[in-house]
Amino acid sequence: MMVGNKRDPLYSEYVFSDPRRVAIIGAGLLGGSFGLAIRKRFDRCEVVGVSRSAISREQAVSSGAVTSATDEAGEACEGADLVCVAIPVDGIAAAVVKAVKNCHADGMVIDLGSTKTTIVRAIDGAPLAAVKFVGTHPIAGSEKTGAANARADLFVGKTVVITPGKNTPSGLVNRARGLWQSLGAKVMEMSPEEHDIAMASVSHVPHLVASMLAGTLRDQTAGLVGTGWLDLTRVASGDPQMWAAICRENPSAISAELARAGQWLSRLRAAIDSGDFASVERMLVEAKVVRDHVASRQK
Amino acid sequence: MMVGNKRDPLYSEYVFSDPRRVAIIGAGLLGGSFGLAIRKRFDRCEVVGVSRSAISREQAVSSGAVTSATDEAGEACEGADLVCVAIPVDGIAAAVVKAVKNCHADGMVIDLGSTKTTIVRAIDGAPLAAVKFVGTHPIAGSEKTGAANARADLFVGKTVVITPGKNTPSGLVNRARGLWQSLGAKVMEMSPEEHDIAMASVSHVPHLVASMLAGTLRDQTAGLVGTGWLDLTRVASGDPQMWAAICRENPSAISAELARAGQWLSRLRAAIDSGDFASVERMLVEAKVVRDHVASRQK
Repeated sequence: MMVGNKRDPLYSEYVFSDPRRVAIIGAGLLGGSFGLAIRKRFDRCEVVGVSRSAISREQAVSSGAVTSATDEAGEACEGADLVCVAIPVDGIAAAVVKAVKNCHADGMVIDLGSTKTTIVRAIDGAPLAAVKFVGTHPIAGSEKTGAANARADLFVGKTVVITPGKNTPSGLVNRARGLWQSLGAKVMEMSPEEHDIAMASVSHVPHLVASMLAGTLRDQTAGLVGTGWLDLTRVASGDPQMWAAICRENPSAISAELARAGQWLSRLRAAIDSGDFASVERMLVEAKVVRDHVASRQK
Repeated sequence: MMVGNKRDPLYSEYVFSDPRRVAIIGAGLLGGSFGLAIRKRFDRCEVVGVSRSAISREQAVSSGAVTSATDEAGEACEGADLVCVAIPVDGIAAAVVKAVKNCHADGMVIDLGSTKTTIVRAIDGAPLAAVKFVGTHPIAGSEKTGAANARADLFVGKTVVITPGKNTPSGLVNRARGLWQSLGAKVMEMSPEEHDIAMASVSHVPHLVASMLAGTLRDQTAGLVGTGWLDLTRVASGDPQMWAAICRENPSAISAELARAGQWLSRLRAAIDSGDFASVERMLVEAKVVRDHVASRQK
């Protein structure tokens, strides 16, 4: 039983029992980092990674993210008291329903997906799954991929949003809270819908805007890009399939944020076209105030 | 006389005589870095910094960027064989015209501004200035400001665009080329108009888009931003007045690029709204191809 004491930086106010067997469906960067974090915190725990690709399974084992790996999710979940689903968002709901059937009777299933509404709604509609599943989203990641790039401290000090559904038992929510706190994360609770609107603003649309900057680069100008452009477009090197899936799972919030982005740019363009540079400067000042404020909170 | 030999990494195919007295109008991060680079390469050169602010003058001297500092541009330019104008773009043309009057009869005046058309056109219309001035733009910088953050190697390996006007003597263009090559930069030549269109695409609009991401952040979501958002908005913490001046100096190219940005985002939004996620993925793949290609060229 992991309870800790208040002086322990990993002290958790929520009880989370030491897991004995953990299954991780999808052993990429996030799943691999979850495995490393679990193994660091609960050193006698067995961690089974699931991946269809033999290379991914090899990487997951050799990096120490899992104690063993298989391509059979059902087998991996057998008897697991914790299952973590760490695959692209459009496959999560189906994987959760399957994991719930195979895991331990008292097992908990979580996911790491960066969209929540469609996933949590789907599970809410599947009573057997709803009582074992808690949607969670750690705000952490990397443009790198694969368990070979996984880090045991990826979630330390990071925010994890927990998004209970209508049918999620409150005891299970507290257990998920305790789990993430025991791994060093800060936990926030939001509804899946609130989460998706917020993430469209702080993550999904910023990613798509980075792709826009890369996608609209003029020919013959590649030799002129500086560190600014490279920093601004870094995330556009991410996996297009994964990001298309995020758009598919969170279309309305993303569409609304894209509209707001377009309106801001149109307003700026109208000010430039009419020679109203005082308004241009005012818009840039407002943006700077927000950015400086948010950045100072992160320190 | 600096000529160098071909084995010297700073070998220049263009002749640039050792300067004896250099004036730098505007002793901030760029001007200060220019001073450090000049003093490193030409160690007996006198470098006079010009700033209206006593703090900036103090920083410029104490950081070693200049050998002395004054608030009098005319005095600083007196007898200078090289004047570097490193102030916000909307003040450059007037400062160049003044510098030309005060510098050495064989002196050369350059600027470091990130817009070129209005500056070069204004100087082209001032015959006495046109024969001494070459517009140059080093693609280098930092979100930090002030000579205290200046770096002697800021321009090493970086691209400098030289933008001759209709009345710029070709000998002077070669001298500017030799200067920048002697400081370790790679030189490209473009017309001021070509330069401004290209920079709107690779620098100006990306900056404005970063401001958009900060300016449209929803309330209550500041606690949810991750490293992606912070990286994407980093340049939005830059000086709003300086960036409003860039919009004022390069309005038509920036307006055209803002329109292209808006069109790309609208096209993406239409694909999302109509559930056409194959098109979404295709747009993201195209962007990734461009980004990966450009990033690989930078290595």
